[in-house]
Amino acid sequence: MTHRFRITIERKPGLSDPEGATTRKALIDLGFEDVEHVSFGRIVSVTIHASDEATARSSVDEMCEKLLANPVMETYTVESES
Amino acid sequence: MTHRFRITIERKPGLSDPEGATTRKALIDLGFEDVEHVSFGRIVSVTIHASDEATARSSVDEMCEKLLANPVMETYTVESES
Repeated sequence: MTHRFRITIERKPGLSDPEGATTRKALIDLGFEDVEHVSFGRIVSVTIHASDEATARSSVDEMCEKLLANPVMETYTVESES
Repeated sequence: MTHRFRITIERKPGLSDPEGATTRKALIDLGFEDVEHVSFGRIVSVTIHASDEATARSSVDEMCEKLLANPVMETYTVESES
């Protein structure tokens, strides 16, 4: 059976986000002077074959730890989209 | 008043996603042989000062069109987090 998950990966609070800071400046230069803060994150959608959702989710958690996220600097959440 | 929005930006369906294809291969090499599909997207969190939420949201939509998303290749959704 096919299961689909959406993984949201965000930088841990307090870590600097140069991409966000640069984008905020660019937005201000474009006239959006009221922008206070911008930060970036990633979404990874994974479709996987597994006998049941619990097995699939456990694989996805392992993928996050091994490849998709950097657990030192990032937090991630996994939501089922099946 | 401060309003916070989460913008989810994803590639339009049917467009190739080389980052997703490469990540799928890497996951298979790591032993996750049941991965069928991987695709990537971005999240941008924007905090903005505005008199009301409708004004804030309209600014955020304009930011997406002008800078944050590429309307030719991407779709975006804006959710309030206030």
